[in-house]
Amino acid sequence: MTTTNTRRPFSQILLGRPLDTAAAPHQAIGKLPALAVFASDALSSVAYATEEILVILALAGAAYFFTSIPIALAISVLLLVLTISYRQTIFAYPGGGGAYIVARDNLGELPAQTAGAALLTDYILTVAVSISSGVAQITSAFPALHPYRVELALGLVLLMTIINLRGVKESSTTFAIPTYFFLGMAFLMLGVGLFRWLTGTLTPVTGVTAMTAAVQPLTLFLILRAFSSGCTALTGVEAISNGITAFKEPRSRNAATTMLAMSGILMIMFVGITLLAHAVVAVPSETETVISQVARSVFGNGPIYIMMLVATTTILIMAANTSFADFPRLAALHAGDGFLPRQLTFRGSRLVFSWGIVGLASIASLLIVVFRASVSALIPLYAIGVFLSFTLSQTGMVVRWQKISRIRPGEEHLLHGAVVRYDPRWRLKQVINALGAVMTGVVMLVFAVTKFRDGAWLVILLTPTLVWVFFRIHHHYRKVAAELSLAGTQSVVAPRQVITLVMVDNLHASSIRAINFALSLGQPWTAVHISIDPERTVDLQRKWVARMGDRPLVILPSPYRSLTQPLLRHVRELRERQPDAYIHLIFGVLTMESYWEQGLHQNSGAAFRLAFRQVEGVAITNVPFQLHHGLLADAPRPGGE
Amino acid sequence: MTTTNTRRPFSQILLGRPLDTAAAPHQAIGKLPALAVFASDALSSVAYATEEILVILALAGAAYFFTSIPIALAISVLLLVLTISYRQTIFAYPGGGGAYIVARDNLGELPAQTAGAALLTDYILTVAVSISSGVAQITSAFPALHPYRVELALGLVLLMTIINLRGVKESSTTFAIPTYFFLGMAFLMLGVGLFRWLTGTLTPVTGVTAMTAAVQPLTLFLILRAFSSGCTALTGVEAISNGITAFKEPRSRNAATTMLAMSGILMIMFVGITLLAHAVVAVPSETETVISQVARSVFGNGPIYIMMLVATTTILIMAANTSFADFPRLAALHAGDGFLPRQLTFRGSRLVFSWGIVGLASIASLLIVVFRASVSALIPLYAIGVFLSFTLSQTGMVVRWQKISRIRPGEEHLLHGAVVRYDPRWRLKQVINALGAVMTGVVMLVFAVTKFRDGAWLVILLTPTLVWVFFRIHHHYRKVAAELSLAGTQSVVAPRQVITLVMVDNLHASSIRAINFALSLGQPWTAVHISIDPERTVDLQRKWVARMGDRPLVILPSPYRSLTQPLLRHVRELRERQPDAYIHLIFGVLTMESYWEQGLHQNSGAAFRLAFRQVEGVAITNVPFQLHHGLLADAPRPGGE
Repeated sequence: MTTTNTRRPFSQILLGRPLDTAAAPHQAIGKLPALAVFASDALSSVAYATEEILVILALAGAAYFFTSIPIALAISVLLLVLTISYRQTIFAYPGGGGAYIVARDNLGELPAQTAGAALLTDYILTVAVSISSGVAQITSAFPALHPYRVELALGLVLLMTIINLRGVKESSTTFAIPTYFFLGMAFLMLGVGLFRWLTGTLTPVTGVTAMTAAVQPLTLFLILRAFSSGCTALTGVEAISNGITAFKEPRSRNAATTMLAMSGILMIMFVGITLLAHAVVAVPSETETVISQVARSVFGNGPIYIMMLVATTTILIMAANTSFADFPRLAALHAGDGFLPRQLTFRGSRLVFSWGIVGLASIASLLIVVFRASVSALIPLYAIGVFLSFTLSQTGMVVRWQKISRIRPGEEHLLHGAVVRYDPRWRLKQVINALGAVMTGVVMLVFAVTKFRDGAWLVILLTPTLVWVFFRIHHHYRKVAAELSLAGTQSVVAPRQVITLVMVDNLHASSIRAINFALSLGQPWTAVHISIDPERTVDLQRKWVARMGDRPLVILPSPYRSLTQPLLRHVRELRERQPDAYIHLIFGVLTMESYWEQGLHQNSGAAFRLAFRQVEGVAITNVPFQLHHGLLADAPRPGGE
Repeated sequence: MTTTNTRRPFSQILLGRPLDTAAAPHQAIGKLPALAVFASDALSSVAYATEEILVILALAGAAYFFTSIPIALAISVLLLVLTISYRQTIFAYPGGGGAYIVARDNLGELPAQTAGAALLTDYILTVAVSISSGVAQITSAFPALHPYRVELALGLVLLMTIINLRGVKESSTTFAIPTYFFLGMAFLMLGVGLFRWLTGTLTPVTGVTAMTAAVQPLTLFLILRAFSSGCTALTGVEAISNGITAFKEPRSRNAATTMLAMSGILMIMFVGITLLAHAVVAVPSETETVISQVARSVFGNGPIYIMMLVATTTILIMAANTSFADFPRLAALHAGDGFLPRQLTFRGSRLVFSWGIVGLASIASLLIVVFRASVSALIPLYAIGVFLSFTLSQTGMVVRWQKISRIRPGEEHLLHGAVVRYDPRWRLKQVINALGAVMTGVVMLVFAVTKFRDGAWLVILLTPTLVWVFFRIHHHYRKVAAELSLAGTQSVVAPRQVITLVMVDNLHASSIRAINFALSLGQPWTAVHISIDPERTVDLQRKWVARMGDRPLVILPSPYRSLTQPLLRHVRELRERQPDAYIHLIFGVLTMESYWEQGLHQNSGAAFRLAFRQVEGVAITNVPFQLHHGLLADAPRPGGE
């Protein structure tokens, strides 16, 4: 017997030894590490949000760049409403209140699937945008790498795929170091920058080639477009509401405090960087990011500048990594409910949802290639999904408060598996969530309209298409379950007749083994040969008589040289004569030691399986015959048995 | 029973109804149609040979373009020697004397495989070069199409693939019309052009943007490089020596006459076009071919000019088509001798060597994409192969004359299956072939040296690699044949014990059918479940007891969630206890109506076949269960049997 397991397979070297199902760890974490774990997605967006506002304003001319400051302030107000609104979700769903769950519980299947589709799309874009922005930071510091940005981005995605297939150990330190390093560097930059600005030593950035010249007037439409671009700063703020279970008790309170801290930090950084960008007269450029221009002006071209870019790149990669954790988990949730292929619920050898990880990486890579790793090109596709899920989630909360208002004070109710009580302040809280829903809904519409032609149309088409696909999948699974169900039936397992055909292509050790297997089954059997080449058939018949005597050999002529058609016809005739019998086709299969050798042989097994897939009652058996090239001397088994 | 054949499959719509093996036609043709069939490859090369000489000379400056005339004359001398030399091959091999056969008969396996590898490479390049040149003619007439030349070229290759998979009817008319149309147009152009030149009414071409400026002096090396480029005019002259059997009797004489005619026409056209190009001061350009410039100068920008380009494009496509016929045939010859995968010898439903056609088209398409459909970029790879095969073929002839010289006058000898006699003029003929061998060998060396850095190195590396691969394949087939051989053995087909395991993932209609099949075989069997999800296993055990009573169900725990590993281990244990028994694994397989539905299910069959491919004595049976979504009402078979 050949053991295939003596060498450690390449996949294990790459991904590590398999992990036991029982090994899945769960550990509650404090607020400071939790901030690090959940905030990277939200905080990292300051790396590109200001720049994307300027990219749009540049269409009207550099003279209007100051408009970025009121835009950033408006986005901050939106962030405030969103934070208050989500705090309520955190308290209402201490078990984790992602948009999918909130919408499913309160609004029904269709809104839930819509929220899910929107979020899945956005997770993919988070990877594409964050990695592209990370690469843009690298090429800002090392312009020589600029021509290789697509390759760099794809390399990073591949690296993250491997790391995530290995499974990221849920150690909060892994997250804390880069997140707090970035926070430290960013606040250092803001502090030093503001100080130098106020003392008049901050000079405009030099040596940057601007991207676009003024080509159109500053219309309201353009301002709204710039606002939409800036709203990408808010992607990721919902992360904490998904992960409440990771917090120490009192979970909801700690999660809410952490979210408040995160939003505050995000607001200060976003407005601060926008102000500094204005102060140093940063201009959007193909070759250098705005954050690099700001850092270069503040710190000079030395090691601290490089450290700032390293920190930014790292936090962007961490943000992409958040999607590598969230996308497969959400996809598994959908799949578990029967709306996505069931394979997405399988945990791989390292306890991770391998298919989800590979799927996410593949689509994100495709986007990176198509959009040439350009953040500005990807931005119009980004954030619509997340704002749609904000709206649905907040709308769900509004409905929930309505339900709670109907509970009699003092009574306990069971709502979606959790115990709830009447809340006297329900009306205020409902109004807050309604405000959140309306504001995010309006932003989504503004986004969809102002970015439509730049690429938003793709997402607007894609989301309903995905939802439709989800429901078709669901329909399929329900039908199959109904057909396979044994409920109400008696499983009559009375044996039926079996007609055994042994396929003989040529008379050699492999076909002899197939015949031997058929003999061993103890059923009557017939040898069948498909005659494609008449000369070879004559040769076989001669050999057959010499070795098997007068045992019959059925010859099926194949004038059109098809391998499968003559056998299909023969089997149909047999079935017509005995409709209740099983047809049992036995094939000898040559197994080579390597795949290149296997490729040199006909490997007709797949062709036969394909041809017979819709023919009922046909069982197909492969009897392998292994060729041991290296072992010829000690295991000479020609004729085999 | 479901019939899969009620609809005509897409492949049949595309490729036509299958053809009977007995339908292969053979018909001898006359000299004029034969010229059309075999000459397109050789004649079409005048469409680019002159231009490629000028491309190289342009490196030294337009002042040296007149050098193209002596170069064209030198190439004509080479063509003369080659023609006389190949005439002798035609008479020596009336059954067809391709380089592979001549080398195999006279020089042995290694030179034969080398000649074959060289020819196969060159056939691929013929497709890439001819199609690229054809597209260049089209974009010369319609410059708007210039940005789409790669797409156009790939589209043409795809079209030719489909036509050739359908099978080109061996009607010589299909060839005669475009070949003679091209000949007519080309001679019209030469005639009118010479007349206008002599009468002084031929003016230099205008409106062409030249490709390169003078950058280096006119060295001997550069002249030799230009000469090498021009030698591509000679590709395809060997075609007739391969196809002698297609001629009417006396075959060899007719073939020799046709070859002489072809060489004469080729020489006149090549020298003529080179002269006219000089007369109209044509310059190599990215956007307009030299032949288009000549035609435009001679005919003006009217319909005759367009006709000339149509004729040129058509003959180039015919030339590529020659490779579509020759490559699969030569590949099948190699495969039949066991030097290439055996699949290449299979004739498809339309009697053509489908794998060879698809393989040729794929590699040629790859070359077109990599070299952006640029003739000048492809030329350094082209023609080395064909000159190597010229050399080997002529050397083979030299050896053959030596053998013939040893026959006693008046006696008849059997040489490689053919009757030969002493030839008193053998020495002269040997010298002619030797001259051919030496000249083509020298040209090949000149080509390899002068084009090495431009791409010839690729072919120089590739050819020995291919030969090495051919011999590895040959070695593999011989070993397998030895291992499978039953010679000297008694085919003991005494039955062995069979241990039957029915794999049960869940208890539903499909697994019940698998169990029913196992029961029907009449052998003892055991149900086995691989427990990946402990909850599902408990659920199954409950259902099992309810339906199957106290029949045992073996549970194989899979803590690492692997589908195959626990079963592999279990089977190994069983085999260790009973090393002589067959293990028979029976799987129920769910078969969906469509592939997208199939994709929603686990389809673990392939994973198990892969996992067990190296484990001896394990037969794997698939028992399909077809789901009939549309037929639920009239064929309700839950529980199935």
